Amino acid sequence: MKTVVLSAGDELILGQTVDTNSAWLSAELILHGGLPLYHKTVGDSVSAIAEAIREAAGAADLVIVSGGLGPTADDVTRQALSMVLGRPLALDPESLMAIRRFFEVLGRTMPEPNRIQAMHPEGTRMLPNPWGTAPGIAAEVGDSRVYLLPGVPREMKGMFQCHVVPWLDGVSGRHIATESLTTFGAGESVVAQALGELMARDRNPMVGTTVSGGEVTVRIRSESADRETALRERDATVEEVRKRLAEWVVSSGGTGLVEVTIHLARKAGRQVVTAESCTGGWIAKMLTDVPGASDIYRGGWVVYANALKESLLGVPRAMIEHDGSVSEAVAAAMAAEALRRSGADYALAVTGIAGPGGGSDAKPMGTVWIAVAGMDGGTMRTTCRKWVFPGDREMVRLRAAKTAINMLRLALLGKGEACA
Amino acid sequence: MKTVVLSAGDELILGQTVDTNSAWLSAELILHGGLPLYHKTVGDSVSAIAEAIREAAGAADLVIVSGGLGPTADDVTRQALSMVLGRPLALDPESLMAIRRFFEVLGRTMPEPNRIQAMHPEGTRMLPNPWGTAPGIAAEVGDSRVYLLPGVPREMKGMFQCHVVPWLDGVSGRHIATESLTTFGAGESVVAQALGELMARDRNPMVGTTVSGGEVTVRIRSESADRETALRERDATVEEVRKRLAEWVVSSGGTGLVEVTIHLARKAGRQVVTAESCTGGWIAKMLTDVPGASDIYRGGWVVYANALKESLLGVPRAMIEHDGSVSEAVAAAMAAEALRRSGADYALAVTGIAGPGGGSDAKPMGTVWIAVAGMDGGTMRTTCRKWVFPGDREMVRLRAAKTAINMLRLALLGKGEACA
Repeated sequence: MKTVVLSAGDELILGQTVDTNSAWLSAELILHGGLPLYHKTVGDSVSAIAEAIREAAGAADLVIVSGGLGPTADDVTRQALSMVLGRPLALDPESLMAIRRFFEVLGRTMPEPNRIQAMHPEGTRMLPNPWGTAPGIAAEVGDSRVYLLPGVPREMKGMFQCHVVPWLDGVSGRHIATESLTTFGAGESVVAQALGELMARDRNPMVGTTVSGGEVTVRIRSESADRETALRERDATVEEVRKRLAEWVVSSGGTGLVEVTIHLARKAGRQVVTAESCTGGWIAKMLTDVPGASDIYRGGWVVYANALKESLLGVPRAMIEHDGSVSEAVAAAMAAEALRRSGADYALAVTGIAGPGGGSDAKPMGTVWIAVAGMDGGTMRTTCRKWVFPGDREMVRLRAAKTAINMLRLALLGKGEACA
Repeated sequence: MKTVVLSAGDELILGQTVDTNSAWLSAELILHGGLPLYHKTVGDSVSAIAEAIREAAGAADLVIVSGGLGPTADDVTRQALSMVLGRPLALDPESLMAIRRFFEVLGRTMPEPNRIQAMHPEGTRMLPNPWGTAPGIAAEVGDSRVYLLPGVPREMKGMFQCHVVPWLDGVSGRHIATESLTTFGAGESVVAQALGELMARDRNPMVGTTVSGGEVTVRIRSESADRETALRERDATVEEVRKRLAEWVVSSGGTGLVEVTIHLARKAGRQVVTAESCTGGWIAKMLTDVPGASDIYRGGWVVYANALKESLLGVPRAMIEHDGSVSEAVAAAMAAEALRRSGADYALAVTGIAGPGGGSDAKPMGTVWIAVAGMDGGTMRTTCRKWVFPGDREMVRLRAAKTAINMLRLALLGKGEACA
């Protein structure tokens, strides 16, 4: 099925915001049998959006438009669709009620401008949005199905899964079986090299990779006229991918590294604390991003200044002076003290040089020591490892935080040695 | 000058890579008098790229195409231009020499496939690329100027500055003046309501808003035939926007809330610590995202479990039992103890219910107590405030973290009372 992805927004066309929706939508559309023809981004102009919809509907069977459904004067995607269809906007009382309720739950009154969000061109269908105030709209433009979705990525993704995927799966005559494997520890090009000919464009099942937050996801998409074949061929390819990527595979089904690690700790009934220097709270933030993290995560320290490493965690000043704050000794001491002072089962400690300043020949920017201390019977066992992460400050910090969590995951799996 | 930005690449259209080039190019084009009409992304197909170039050249005065100038079989942008112009590719001996030299410098021989990079449609001009092996190409398609640039962001940016900007600055007749104001504390629809008719689509200067990470940015763009008028009208609109948004305006020029707050603390020579419960390290992470945060940020505690509020920060168990962990008393105690134990000048403390679970009628999800403790002479002064943030777990945590930082900003400005 030919598809076009459109985005509307002055912030996109003026270059103030990078459009991440189109890439996400394309990857998802492909999984569900879509063939993306092009992406197009236009500003918040009724005529530009209308022309883009008309053009896309002429070329494709399915058009997804994200953005421009907000309550402000520059949100004009619904007006553009109205112009394309030659039908006026009408108020949908049910949507208006839902929007009012959305505000009521927050203890607020719906601002008058939000009323426009309950309007849609006559003869089109409103799509409820449980994540925000902007319902989507489904319409037929000529022979093409057109979906208007909100531009906020979280809402757009929910609306796509909730409203577009069922339609796609319904109209496609083919059977599609997908799987995704989350990997950590190898860059995308290393993964691609290991996958080799599996990634050929014309292969079925198709194998592709996407990168996000330091994790490389391998997507497998198998297509066949019958369901059994689609599933069998998918499973064979998944097995081959697992064999080639071996130790890098963290999970299947889209579960990320952090969720997997929390799940493992919960299953084992273990409590975790953190002691962070260069990651500055990011590990704690990643863990507590996950609802229910309190089952396994107790808290910890951010010892960004060396004085706090000493005063809060008792890292000896002499050690910091002799070995430097970015050293195996300091990482190990941070982890051991965090474990001792909290009474937890595992402590993660990170100290490194995130840059842009602070590097030297001996310890270049990106140098990070990570320690995992754990109670094994009544004995404390600590695994330390030095890493030199490429990239800028953000990349180094992200890689350091995720690598620490991955070291905890390996420790929970009894593979602590694997990172020694 | 009307401009179109095109991107070519299967990795883009398949959603494997997010297109960051188009946003960057648009922002730069606007600075140099360009008026972006649309962005379009197509796959590595000669006919799709050719059609996109033809369409863009029909609509715009300037077309920038990035991507598809590499040495491999799927790099076909030069062939597409050749098809559009109806002129065959010819070898440019000078470019071939430059490519050979590029490899020689690296101690390697030019691989044969790279020869294609020295070819361009007859009658077009090669643009030297000192950053890589892919020269760009400049051509006239009808009345439109078309530039082909490499897709690698670093090379694309260099080539744009080196070859496109001088041409743009030479031909542009209009003057454009822009400004952006960062605001915090009001949602986008509230800001839009306050701006009212200033946001009319046909107004010059034009006023628009974008949201990112809980901050609403107001953009002002003034256009005129002469520079003085463009600047004067921009400044008048900026003043009016500032008047209407008053206390919500954090900064101008694109500086975010966190950077502004760090700057204020640095100027005042103040040191900050944090004690976080529901934000779980996110405040620490936000502060340490900024290079040089170590000037003002020392570190702190993540006391996610109540037991750690007691053992690490000495919050009395009786207080937690009597008032609840989400209470004014606990927030104030966390801030006071964090300040006392660290010897810093300011401590931020946050305790709340981020959800999805944990809410009650008396303390619904989104309830957050934030305390800022500061040393005023030799006396500790603490400001506490209760908030009920809308949205899901991520939104509540983000709003809580940013609001805490904003309360610190107000305290640094001597406006601590404003949040009482």
